[in-house]
Amino acid sequence: MIKTPYQDLEDRFRRMDAVNGATSMLHWDMSAMMPPGGVETRTEQLATLETIAHAMITDTALSDLLDGAEADPHLDTWQQANIGEMRRRWVHSTALDADLVEASSRAVAKCETVWRDARATADFKAVLPYLEEVLNLTRQTAQAKAEKLGLSPYDALLDQYEPDGRADDINEVFADLGAFLPDFLDDVLAKQASAPKILSPEGPFPTQKQKALGQTFMTTLGFNFDHGRLDESHHPFCGGTYDDVRLTTRYDEADFTSALMGVLHETGHALYDQGLPKQWRGQPVGMDRGMSIHESQSLLIEMQACRSREFLEYAAPLMRDAFDGSGPAWGVGNLTRFYTKVEKGFIRVDADEVTYPAHVILRFNLERAAIAGDLKMADLPTAWNDGLQNILGIIPPSDREGCLQDIHWYDGAWGYFPTYTLGAMTAAQFFAQAKADNPEILPCIAKGDFTPLMSWLRKHVHAKGCSLSTKDLITEATGEPLNAAHFKAHLKTRYLED
Amino acid sequence: MIKTPYQDLEDRFRRMDAVNGATSMLHWDMSAMMPPGGVETRTEQLATLETIAHAMITDTALSDLLDGAEADPHLDTWQQANIGEMRRRWVHSTALDADLVEASSRAVAKCETVWRDARATADFKAVLPYLEEVLNLTRQTAQAKAEKLGLSPYDALLDQYEPDGRADDINEVFADLGAFLPDFLDDVLAKQASAPKILSPEGPFPTQKQKALGQTFMTTLGFNFDHGRLDESHHPFCGGTYDDVRLTTRYDEADFTSALMGVLHETGHALYDQGLPKQWRGQPVGMDRGMSIHESQSLLIEMQACRSREFLEYAAPLMRDAFDGSGPAWGVGNLTRFYTKVEKGFIRVDADEVTYPAHVILRFNLERAAIAGDLKMADLPTAWNDGLQNILGIIPPSDREGCLQDIHWYDGAWGYFPTYTLGAMTAAQFFAQAKADNPEILPCIAKGDFTPLMSWLRKHVHAKGCSLSTKDLITEATGEPLNAAHFKAHLKTRYLED
Repeated sequence: MIKTPYQDLEDRFRRMDAVNGATSMLHWDMSAMMPPGGVETRTEQLATLETIAHAMITDTALSDLLDGAEADPHLDTWQQANIGEMRRRWVHSTALDADLVEASSRAVAKCETVWRDARATADFKAVLPYLEEVLNLTRQTAQAKAEKLGLSPYDALLDQYEPDGRADDINEVFADLGAFLPDFLDDVLAKQASAPKILSPEGPFPTQKQKALGQTFMTTLGFNFDHGRLDESHHPFCGGTYDDVRLTTRYDEADFTSALMGVLHETGHALYDQGLPKQWRGQPVGMDRGMSIHESQSLLIEMQACRSREFLEYAAPLMRDAFDGSGPAWGVGNLTRFYTKVEKGFIRVDADEVTYPAHVILRFNLERAAIAGDLKMADLPTAWNDGLQNILGIIPPSDREGCLQDIHWYDGAWGYFPTYTLGAMTAAQFFAQAKADNPEILPCIAKGDFTPLMSWLRKHVHAKGCSLSTKDLITEATGEPLNAAHFKAHLKTRYLED
Repeated sequence: MIKTPYQDLEDRFRRMDAVNGATSMLHWDMSAMMPPGGVETRTEQLATLETIAHAMITDTALSDLLDGAEADPHLDTWQQANIGEMRRRWVHSTALDADLVEASSRAVAKCETVWRDARATADFKAVLPYLEEVLNLTRQTAQAKAEKLGLSPYDALLDQYEPDGRADDINEVFADLGAFLPDFLDDVLAKQASAPKILSPEGPFPTQKQKALGQTFMTTLGFNFDHGRLDESHHPFCGGTYDDVRLTTRYDEADFTSALMGVLHETGHALYDQGLPKQWRGQPVGMDRGMSIHESQSLLIEMQACRSREFLEYAAPLMRDAFDGSGPAWGVGNLTRFYTKVEKGFIRVDADEVTYPAHVILRFNLERAAIAGDLKMADLPTAWNDGLQNILGIIPPSDREGCLQDIHWYDGAWGYFPTYTLGAMTAAQFFAQAKADNPEILPCIAKGDFTPLMSWLRKHVHAKGCSLSTKDLITEATGEPLNAAHFKAHLKTRYLED
């Protein structure tokens, strides 16, 4: 039987997905299971699979097959969307010539290694030449992709993580949020200063008990353990594949609160993966919609749902019982204040949901300037410190707490940062609409019943795969494009009114 | 820089090894880690990687490259041996046309599924047509490979597991052993009948304590946990790669003795993998020498070393302390009798080292007859029962304990069985030579020091990779080709003299 171009493409992308799934599992294993001596062989395995996957997507047959499939009048809308995603991946993969890919790969590997030491010793100058080389090659990448995609260089980078994302649109919502934050933050800090002192539950908190509690909450949220696991790794993440989601965390026996919230965050990612449309397994259109939507799912679970007073009404007694705790630190009021404490800090990954956007907006502005050629890396520390002072009123004591803190730029991930705060805003917009559509969502969460919330998310987000653009997905689900109003309203309600 | 054919082949086989290593890890994960819902996606991943690896070894460029490399006058002996191994793999992989490979693969998958039910219900007739089809296709495979390899059909199958193994040679040593066993077995059973009653240590034996004890002994034996792990799976095995050996076992909280000896057995395999020559990582010549040598390493550790009175002198107190045991069951004498008890039984995998060869010789004779066309599968149950009665004097109560017990034939693995007993004989021959070369080996084992034994094995077996044929490896290490004398001497010493 002769395959149509569309059928041929489906077969090819199914095989690519299998190779990528294998890669994903080997990455999980490397972080969660592999003994240290396995690293050399594993690196060889991963590089080989990457080469194979790259050869599959850049196969010269694809150009004609894509043209043929796009001209096929018999495809339904999901199939058309599938072709669109195939085309997008193909353009990204074929936009660069092999020399640039290899030079970038080498520059990034070197820069990342130097950065680890440079961060430890707060020595930005040591990594500067390597960062300059990474930026130089990233700008070439951006230029090459911009030409193929008909986008600006920065948007071409952004498009890798956030399909159809545009800096101008982001700038608009970030400007709105950025104007709101400073005064709001002052109000919140003033209010919290007059609230009762926050008490920390006292440990120790044995790892096995933390893990059991995490698994209990994962089940409550709807995580399907027939299709996933919870393990440990140095850097928590959500990996594996849609049918076998591998979630990791890191335990601190002196403090259970951070690992537990981390598990809930990653569970938000995992629920998205587990909820992707089963009939499109292995096809691009059956995948997640991109980074901001993925982050919206983890932040909706963590920030919107699980740091709410309602969830903590349900969860506080379970936390207390799990660790045989007693006393006022375990009360709902204290734990709610604990989990919504706001502080100005230097470190993005430690930031609360109020100050987090400030860190992201700073990076978004700096990386756009750098890609445009308007910010030299030699000037990065000054620009960073000035920017942080402007937006949060604080200056890092050294570059370790400043422009050296994040791996992203040193690792070649330019255009990634905005997705965190786009995710936070999208989460607020989804959650507001979900609650409006079904007023039982919050009362049910207070009883440990996530079914109403999950069925809203399954229907309006998870089951869509990437059949819609991010913009259309949000508009179909909430009746309006992404805007900052819902996030601001959420912050005002939680931090000033409750 | 232009690569020589040899260099090109090294690159290609290194990539194949990376793909095969990835496959091996995914198999381990499937058995030891994967949640049940991951099976469909994993099956797709494994099938895709298998297809990729097959395409690599059957790439049309290989024929000329192998010819070119074989004509290269500048290769050293290891490089020449490497080419020899490449050629052998290539011949096996290209000997069959794609239709036969696919038909076999489908027939085996179906037969194996039916066999699981047929074994459970002792219903040989239910699986008979599927087994006939597997045998039919296996005979075609044997014929096709025989022509390419210049071997008899059975030897062509054997060569897949036991390179350069020949049925005539095996027949000779098996005949020697087979003639020895019946009278010897009677003597052993008579002697054991008059010995003190064997006591079983009483549990329960918590899984965590069993695991800790297993890890302790693994370390004692020389297992490097920087390059491997111990986990659980339904069917214990030694998987992963040479640099990252994944060993599994299955615990029974009512009996620690079986899982523990299983761990020691798999550790023998693992030590071989970890000891393969590092400078030949990823190349065929750097791999293990084949199934009988691999099995010789596990049986040398389990049967020769760890069921010895010397090892149990060291191990018995550690076992007792690990489980807070007390009483005569934990004495060295009792544990030695426990671990060397001989019994006539129906099940190969439960057999002791005296009766095990009888099970293997039976299967070797039957499978040769089947491949030669002299044994119809419809007659298998009768032939099996007659054969077992001849060699052990017992008849299985049903086919479940008879010709349905092993997966091998139903799974298409014809020509595999003899490697178990070749391994046992090779183990005895190696161990006898090692003790002769270094009389400290046994006294050291009695003190928990495996260093002298391991350094002999590293030098004479592990470090050789497959630079030598099995025959040359054994002859170089022990001064004579494989023969049954050492195994018989070992049995006589352990079971009649001690």
